[in-house]
Order: sequence, then structure tokens, then C-alpha cells
Amino acid sequence: MRFSLLPREDKFFEDFNTQADLIAQSARVLREICEDWSDHEAKVKHISELEHLSDEIVHTVVVRLNKTFVTPVDREDIHAITSDLDDILDYIHGCAIRMNLFKIDKPTPQAIELSRVLEKSTEVVVQGVKALPTFSDIGPLTKQIQTLEKEGDAIYRKALADLFDTGDPIFIIKWKEIYDNFETAIDSCEDVYDVLEGVVLKHA
Amino acid sequence: MRFSLLPREDKFFEDFNTQADLIAQSARVLREICEDWSDHEAKVKHISELEHLSDEIVHTVVVRLNKTFVTPVDREDIHAITSDLDDILDYIHGCAIRMNLFKIDKPTPQAIELSRVLEKSTEVVVQGVKALPTFSDIGPLTKQIQTLEKEGDAIYRKALADLFDTGDPIFIIKWKEIYDNFETAIDSCEDVYDVLEGVVLKHA
Amino acid sequence: MRFSLLPREDKFFEDFNTQADLIAQSARVLREICEDWSDHEAKVKHISELEHLSDEIVHTVVVRLNKTFVTPVDREDIHAITSDLDDILDYIHGCAIRMNLFKIDKPTPQAIELSRVLEKSTEVVVQGVKALPTFSDIGPLTKQIQTLEKEGDAIYRKALADLFDTGDPIFIIKWKEIYDNFETAIDSCEDVYDVLEGVVLKHA
Repeated sequence: MRFSLLPREDKFFEDFNTQADLIAQSARVLREICEDWSDHEAKVKHISELEHLSDEIVHTVVVRLNKTFVTPVDREDIHAITSDLDDILDYIHGCAIRMNLFKIDKPTPQAIELSRVLEKSTEVVVQGVKALPTFSDIGPLTKQIQTLEKEGDAIYRKALADLFDTGDPIFIIKWKEIYDNFETAIDSCEDVYDVLEGVVLKHA
Repeated sequence: MRFSLLPREDKFFEDFNTQADLIAQSARVLREICEDWSDHEAKVKHISELEHLSDEIVHTVVVRLNKTFVTPVDREDIHAITSDLDDILDYIHGCAIRMNLFKIDKPTPQAIELSRVLEKSTEVVVQGVKALPTFSDIGPLTKQIQTLEKEGDAIYRKALADLFDTGDPIFIIKWKEIYDNFETAIDSCEDVYDVLEGVVLKHA
Repeated sequence: MRFSLLPREDKFFEDFNTQADLIAQSARVLREICEDWSDHEAKVKHISELEHLSDEIVHTVVVRLNKTFVTPVDREDIHAITSDLDDILDYIHGCAIRMNLFKIDKPTPQAIELSRVLEKSTEVVVQGVKALPTFSDIGPLTKQIQTLEKEGDAIYRKALADLFDTGDPIFIIKWKEIYDNFETAIDSCEDVYDVLEGVVLKHA
């Protein structure tokens, strides 16, 4: 990409990559929070900072989009990619701040499992975004993300059943909301792939 | 519509009709689930399949929109209609999967009532979408959808009051979320009419 | 603005002002509801009417946007401003109807505090929208809205901790949803400023 004649356009791809890296970073920290609850406040704060950086990139992308006449992919798609990527980080952040806010004792085994699937999903997002400028076939990555989504869904369903089995309403209120955020975060990794697949299709 | 000179444009109307039919079909299955809880897993799966078909149509519409220069109605409206229709099916699906996921004993009488109002609302959506290509006055249909929304709202409020009266927190957690999905599904049928009314107004 | 040569365009600014006034009015009524629970049903109904008026303005703005070729600010921004303003009123309305719907005894002290911060936030929104036609620097107002958002967030976190400490699951279910609406309402006042700042930046 270094010698491109269209420097401004390439910046969109660069920003997507930065956003995807922030997502993978925050998912890794979230997994670390779940595996080791010590120092969780500092770790949650770290995710908040990463989320803030992502917000700034979205802002940059939207401003640049308004000033760019020829875009490397359709305007709607640029908008969809940046905002879908931002959504993922919002949900990751949502998991982290809720665990903090609800003053939970420690993450449940199901939360640990979900955090691992989420981390893997964000790594596939990084790869999909990296492949975008070549518009190459991302079919195998799409299959990976779908497999992870199914895996996450199975863990989520089991987690919810276990949760209701505790019979502890306040515990249920707190963890149901956290699990919902995990499940939506994993789903939103698949949503980005819908847009990426659409873009590849148009340029095929 | 068969001999239209603008075949590609008409496809938008066809797709809206297909989406509306999928919605009405899924609302019928949801009402059947509520009236007869036997075999509910198979019925919920059926709704998931209908929801998946709707997703594919949304995808087709968006791709076609990107390739079509002259559209029969404003691009934003095409986008709004297809995504609002998809929202309805998402909420219907949301009701169904939650009843399954929360392992409820059997649907409450209030859920049965809500499912009937929802089914009727989706039938009015089918009629509104069918009327779209002629841009004819849909005022009477709009009134019907508003009446159904009010009816649904009254049932929802009563259902919530009854629910809190049970004093059973876990039962409340589960059914509150299901009732909220029903209420939003019915509301979203009225939302589509906002867009349809707007389109008719522009072509008046 | 009275002698403008661009009457139709200026109407957008007028509508934003009207929307902002409706927001501030409804936040004032909500604060009154929280401070004095007597006659709450009539007051909630008042907010519902204000919310309905806002819906009509959004509709007017969107219709006019479709008929206007030259807009005073970018089309996306007009759309974003009117819909972000509408969101604020929706969340204010959400607080009010839930207090009514959940048949609460009386507002909690934390709800009163949140309603005061929300009211102040909406007054800053009024000022920001009023400044828009001159595209003048709104930095000081942005700082005010950010300070209010932080203040609201601190109250919200404390409110949630107090809430879980009650150990009363049904009380928690009801108030958690109400507090969430307050917090989102306050957040959404800050969201409007993101768009306003963007518009000012483009015209700098």
C-alpha cells in the first residue's frame, strides 16, 4: 500500500485496521479480566481508554468521508464498517464495565469461556479487515467467524440455563445482562463479516 | 406489474412483499406456539428459518440498491422499508427464541393475547406493502395499525401489572423480557407505516 | 433569521430549536414528577404529548430534507441532529412511562438527583442548538455537557450500588430499568454535541 496514488483513500483501510487492533486488544484484556479478577478496575479502565480511541477513529473516518469524493469502497460500506467495528468495542466495553459496576465477586466459568470465544472472534475480525484492500475471497474466514458464533451461542444458552438454575434473582439480574453483552459482542463480530462479504462481492 | 418496462425496480416491490409474507408467516407460527406449546422447539426453529430468509432478502435489496440508478421510490425509503420489515421479524424471532431459551413452562394467557394482536398487525403490514406500488391512500390501513398498537399496549400494560403482582422475581425477569419483545414487535409494525405513509405522501 | 433569502433552509434550524425546547420542557416535567409524585399520571401524559410533537417535527424535517436541494448543513448531519434530539426525548419519555407503568410508590432520592442533572443537560442542548446557525465555537458548552455527563454517571453508579444493596429483586428490576433510562437520556444529550461539534468543525 505504501506507493499508492490514492493516499487519502488508503487511510480508510488504515483506520479500519487500527480499529480492529483496538478491538482485539480490548477482547484480550477482557479475557484476562475473566481469567484473573485481580486488579480488575485498572483493566476495565484500560478497555475504556481503548474504546475512547475507537470513538475518535470513527469521528476521523466520518469527517474524512465528508471530504472525500472518490472512495475506495462505497460510502455506505465505509460508514457501516467503521460503525460496526465500533459496536464490537462498545459491547466488549459493556461486558467489562458491568462486571465492575455490578460489583461481582468474581467472573463465572461461563464468562471465562465466553471471553475466550470473543477474543478468538476479534482475531478473525482483524484478519478480515486486513484482507479488505485486496478484495480477496474471505470465505474461509467467514466460516471461522460463523463457527465461533455458533460456539458462543451454545455456551451462552448453557450459561443462561445454569444461571436460572441458581434460583438467585439478583445474581441472575447481574449475570444475565453481562452474558447478553458477551453474546451480542460475539454476534457483532459476525455482523462485520456481512458487510465485508458484501464489499468483496461488489468488487469481484 | 408483469409487463413493466422497469423490471429491476419492480423487484424492490416484490422483495418487500416477500418480506411481509415472511413476517406474517412467522407471526402466525408464534401465535400457534402461544396457543399450543407442544412441539415448540420445532416451531421456534421454523421461525428462525423464516428470519434467515428475511436476512437474505435484505442483503439482496441492499446489493441491488447499490447497482440501480433509478429507483421507484427514494433510496433512503427503500432502505428504511426493508430494514424496518426486517426489524419486525427480528422481534418476532426474539419472542420465540426467548420462550425457548428461558425454558418456560407454558405461555401465559397474556402472551397468547399479545401474539394474536401481533399476528393481526403483520397482516395489516402485508396489505400496506402490497398497496405500495400504486402509491394509493393507505389512511384506513394506518388507522387499523394504530388501533392494533393501542390494543397491544393496553394488553402489555395489564400483563406487566399482573406479572409484578406474582411477586416471583425469576418469573418476572423471564416474562418481562418476552412481553417487551412482543410490545416492540407490535410497535415496529406501526413504524413501517410511518415510512409507507411518507412514501405515499411524496408521490401524491 | 426573519429576512433570510433562504427561508426553507432556515426552517431546519427553527425545527431543531423547537425540538430542543420540547426536550427541555419534558425534562423539566420529569424533574417535577421526581420531586413531587402527586398527579404523576397527568404529568406523564404531558411528556407523552411533548414526545408526540417531537415525532411530528422529525417527520416534517425528513420530508423537507427530501424536497430541499441545497441544505444549510450536510444532509446526514440534519438527519443526525433531528434523530439524536428525538432520541433524548424518547429516553426522557422512557423514564416517565416506566415510573408510571411499574406502579412505583414514589421516586427514589437518586432518581430526583438524576432528573436534575438531566434537566440541566437538556438546557445545554437548547443552547447548543441555538448557536448552530452561526457555526460559532461551542467548546465551552461541550465542556458543560461533558461535566454533566460525568456527574450523572457518578450518581448512576452510586444509585445502582445502593439499589443492589436493598436486596429486593423486584425493586431492583424496576429501578434498574428506570435508572438505565436516565443514564442513557443524559448520555444522549452528549451525543448530540458530537454531531454539533462536527458541523461547527466543517464550517470553521
